[in-house]
Amino acid sequence: MIKTPYLLRHENIARIEGSQLLIGDRRTYPFSRDFVRCSTPSDVVDALKMMVTQGGGPLEVALMAMIFTCNLIKAGTLKRTYDTLSDVARHLTLARVTNTTMGRTLERLLSAYGSLDEAMERIEDDVHAILDEYDALYHRMGRLGSTVLDDGSSVLTTCFGEHTLLYSLAYAQAAGKRVTLFVNETRPYLQGSRLTGPSAQEMGLDVTVIGDGMGANLMREGMITHYMTAADVLCMDGTVVNKVGTRANAIAACYHHIPYYAFSISPDPTKTDISLLEMEERDGQEMKECQGEPTTAEGVKGYYPAFDIIEASLVRAVVTPKGILEPTVVKEHFA
Amino acid sequence: MIKTPYLLRHENIARIEGSQLLIGDRRTYPFSRDFVRCSTPSDVVDALKMMVTQGGGPLEVALMAMIFTCNLIKAGTLKRTYDTLSDVARHLTLARVTNTTMGRTLERLLSAYGSLDEAMERIEDDVHAILDEYDALYHRMGRLGSTVLDDGSSVLTTCFGEHTLLYSLAYAQAAGKRVTLFVNETRPYLQGSRLTGPSAQEMGLDVTVIGDGMGANLMREGMITHYMTAADVLCMDGTVVNKVGTRANAIAACYHHIPYYAFSISPDPTKTDISLLEMEERDGQEMKECQGEPTTAEGVKGYYPAFDIIEASLVRAVVTPKGILEPTVVKEHFA
Repeated sequence: MIKTPYLLRHENIARIEGSQLLIGDRRTYPFSRDFVRCSTPSDVVDALKMMVTQGGGPLEVALMAMIFTCNLIKAGTLKRTYDTLSDVARHLTLARVTNTTMGRTLERLLSAYGSLDEAMERIEDDVHAILDEYDALYHRMGRLGSTVLDDGSSVLTTCFGEHTLLYSLAYAQAAGKRVTLFVNETRPYLQGSRLTGPSAQEMGLDVTVIGDGMGANLMREGMITHYMTAADVLCMDGTVVNKVGTRANAIAACYHHIPYYAFSISPDPTKTDISLLEMEERDGQEMKECQGEPTTAEGVKGYYPAFDIIEASLVRAVVTPKGILEPTVVKEHFA
Repeated sequence: MIKTPYLLRHENIARIEGSQLLIGDRRTYPFSRDFVRCSTPSDVVDALKMMVTQGGGPLEVALMAMIFTCNLIKAGTLKRTYDTLSDVARHLTLARVTNTTMGRTLERLLSAYGSLDEAMERIEDDVHAILDEYDALYHRMGRLGSTVLDDGSSVLTTCFGEHTLLYSLAYAQAAGKRVTLFVNETRPYLQGSRLTGPSAQEMGLDVTVIGDGMGANLMREGMITHYMTAADVLCMDGTVVNKVGTRANAIAACYHHIPYYAFSISPDPTKTDISLLEMEERDGQEMKECQGEPTTAEGVKGYYPAFDIIEASLVRAVVTPKGILEPTVVKEHFA
């Protein structure tokens, strides 16, 4: 069957140990397998702001933080009011504004409860039910994604596409198709080199790291058959938001008649178009360093726009739990 | 007037000191200002192969290596035959096969001599005459390049465009136009962060480093008015060869209706089209490190195609000493 790599196993993303919430530190993987230990909800918020985890990580962290908060309420460490829980949810959501799946999932979780007591009684089961539901959706999307790959397909990806991207290749391989993966290193945090590369390798996939500007080179050489990424956000009009670097590759793929597929567990129904999305900004200083070492002289400036916007016309299709959809019909399926 | 930054001053590229040829080490700039000291012509060849210098650096190194070789012949260290000189020229040319300007310039230099004695008598003057000639051409191209920039222009570049790119911005600024420069960091060697950024800053230009995949993001935001790079090679049909990453930006620029200008001191008259050019390959291991530190796990592969090919249709114009030319008319002007 399909192996879930270290980084994507629930216990390595977020888990409760005693009175602490542990978050797997993706900033130093694969060079260490450290966890950031949080003793309060605001530690968790800080960890999300400091990019301890990313991609689908914040969603799982936030869900576990709801159980964690209830535990702290039970222990008498936090005030016994419903507001405590909803305040934590709000601060978690604000810690990472662009990826709205986390906020929407927390909202869905909490909206089911009539009282704090009800929440405290049911939240652990409900969170695990949501995590199980997501797991099932990830596998479904991976199976769907594998159907667009052929024997000999060579996929380029950017950043860390997590379950859906990796499962697509793994299911294709399990079906006897030989597939290869190229991944942009994804500066400045190197998620491609550090997360996607080692995870793909752990799953038995053939994976090669290239620079963030090299995709068009490989496309010209006929070395890429598909460009595939996760989508941090999918708008209802089919606009994709994903890690910076995705747009350049999507344009190059279009130029070379190579299809671009984005994976999305669901569009954000409140985002009819991109104008309604708040875009995260990161510190430009990040572009002046690599793994903590300076890469340029002091007075030179740096700029780091974290997310790209990719208009629907550049997207061949989005892989969703409801099927592989042309971007223009997303709103019909998720009305 | 226009200031020549540290890295582009002749004495910091290559100079003879006593019985040694010193090559400015661009691999560690701006963190150190070291020189690699060569005692034999084969040390020089090795230094070029090991990327001690790049861009226009190898050309100056190779010219100085001709004087250096004559000095060694005079001193009796090398055999007193014309073949000694031409053998060194051949090995230098083979050390960096894609950028053919070096080979062509050495050929031009040596073809003027009827004998070794004649070469040994004249070579020092001739080399300096060629360097002076190039300096004048660089300034001419910089002045030409500045004419396509307006007040408020914002230029994106890749790698280290050296004199022509930097002079274009400096001449525009000297003419009272406010111009800004964004530069891709240019992995794996970080020439953008390490060479272009500090050199532009030294010249009083406003310069910002971005990731190699971020150009299309800035173009969408309206932050880029021109894409401009050097050209490692210009073919007679207008095809540009330059550092990997150039193609992705040229395609994105085309998509966003932003002009792409490439600087070339002259096309390679032997390259009627790209099929005749030998492309350098570099070690894929380079993509698995940054400044000597590993960026990924051991078993993950790396791939580093050093040069991009950019077809003439993606190039608005080439800035040459004979004027700013549409790529399709290059062959008429350099027949």
